Amino acid sequence: MQKTWVNGQFTDTAESVIPVTDRGLTLGDGVFDTMLAQDGKPVWAREHFARLSYNASMLGIDFTLDFEAIAETLLEQNDAAQGRYAVRTTITRGSGARGLMPPDTVKPTIIMGCAPAPQKTNRVELVIAQTVRRNEHSPLSKIKSLNYGDNILALIEARDKGAEDALMLNGAGHVCCATAGNIFVQEQDRLLTPPLDDGVLSGITRQKIIESHDVTEESIAPERLFEADAVFITNSIQGLRQVKRIDHTYFQKAATLPNI
Amino acid sequence: MQKTWVNGQFTDTAESVIPVTDRGLTLGDGVFDTMLAQDGKPVWAREHFARLSYNASMLGIDFTLDFEAIAETLLEQNDAAQGRYAVRTTITRGSGARGLMPPDTVKPTIIMGCAPAPQKTNRVELVIAQTVRRNEHSPLSKIKSLNYGDNILALIEARDKGAEDALMLNGAGHVCCATAGNIFVQEQDRLLTPPLDDGVLSGITRQKIIESHDVTEESIAPERLFEADAVFITNSIQGLRQVKRIDHTYFQKAATLPNI
Repeated sequence: MQKTWVNGQFTDTAESVIPVTDRGLTLGDGVFDTMLAQDGKPVWAREHFARLSYNASMLGIDFTLDFEAIAETLLEQNDAAQGRYAVRTTITRGSGARGLMPPDTVKPTIIMGCAPAPQKTNRVELVIAQTVRRNEHSPLSKIKSLNYGDNILALIEARDKGAEDALMLNGAGHVCCATAGNIFVQEQDRLLTPPLDDGVLSGITRQKIIESHDVTEESIAPERLFEADAVFITNSIQGLRQVKRIDHTYFQKAATLPNI
Repeated sequence: MQKTWVNGQFTDTAESVIPVTDRGLTLGDGVFDTMLAQDGKPVWAREHFARLSYNASMLGIDFTLDFEAIAETLLEQNDAAQGRYAVRTTITRGSGARGLMPPDTVKPTIIMGCAPAPQKTNRVELVIAQTVRRNEHSPLSKIKSLNYGDNILALIEARDKGAEDALMLNGAGHVCCATAGNIFVQEQDRLLTPPLDDGVLSGITRQKIIESHDVTEESIAPERLFEADAVFITNSIQGLRQVKRIDHTYFQKAATLPNI
């Protein structure tokens, strides 16, 4: 029986519920994190928890959570001691009355669940989303808030066009990231990635690469992608994956994937 | 005992729940509507249901719902036969596995609840939000999706600054709307409101005014507000409310509020 941790209790996932008045549901008023677990051990747990805490603080949501220990117990309870799993933690502001304004006293909702990580695909086909762009004028574009509607629209467009994921531009037309991954561009001996202020999700893997390699954070026009030697995308669950094509442009060179 | 309607059943609101796997919670994958009920009768129910259906269709969510009849029964069950109530209907794509991609078969979650409408305030104080802007490059900016995080940030900023609500600009710097209301601007004999394509929520009251009065839909620079004769904001619950001030500019003239 699959288990989910909700507000301090492990319950059968099929019976794990939240009130319909939870602001995470009614207004997208919360944040989340997705972390890889390898053979029962969370990977980069400290970094994931730091980001989750920071993201929650941007919304003014205070919470306490024995993050890594609960993740490990969760994996045990789900017979996930072997192999690759994705651990998702969701923090909402909790229940509230009608209206947008957070109530004076709130009790955050905290949910942690896990599921087998998807099979890793090595060569990703992308399209540039035409239906929607990211909002570089919102602080939420940098964090994993519960407001993923734009990304869902972009992903549906990508799948409709026969691609695996979509690259999203921002309002100014610069490249931001995929719907669930950051982008890196190799130009001869340079490694580039867009800056967070362009409306880029602050990915843990992205940050790890920047800390350990010579990466230039620079706004990237979409045309520039098509002239690049190679492009790769990154996220916590799938790691680093080379891009096979963007729209109708195929990349022939193997990317030099950084070790992290 | 307060009642909420969830997927075909009236249940005590305190015990009304949804699964933690609901994509409305995990990803903001859904839409909602807020409608006024006056003395037990929904106001403009046909228009609200048409908008809700259209908004859901933009996300590819199919649902059926005996909207007005359920709303009326809900009001009865909540002893809301007298006075002004807000009826909120939420439609999500339902539960899904991990990841952004909607599952092949989904069963939408439908929730309808009601609460007393807030006391009507007649002269509203506004600030122009500095922390966040609306995304005119997203189809979601025109609809009541569950992605209200940006609006919450703007409203918190407004309340911190001693105002009742915030006006939100779009990425291009044009005026869009308040966090829960549309804006109209009176310039001598002209009545203006921003076009939906500027990232404006498609309000029912806004639409009613446009259909019955001579309104020009035109992009509005924020500076222009301060030169206007009068400004008012509109929503389904509070109707039309004159703006007392925006930032440090006070409006002395009484607005000519259209009859609808």
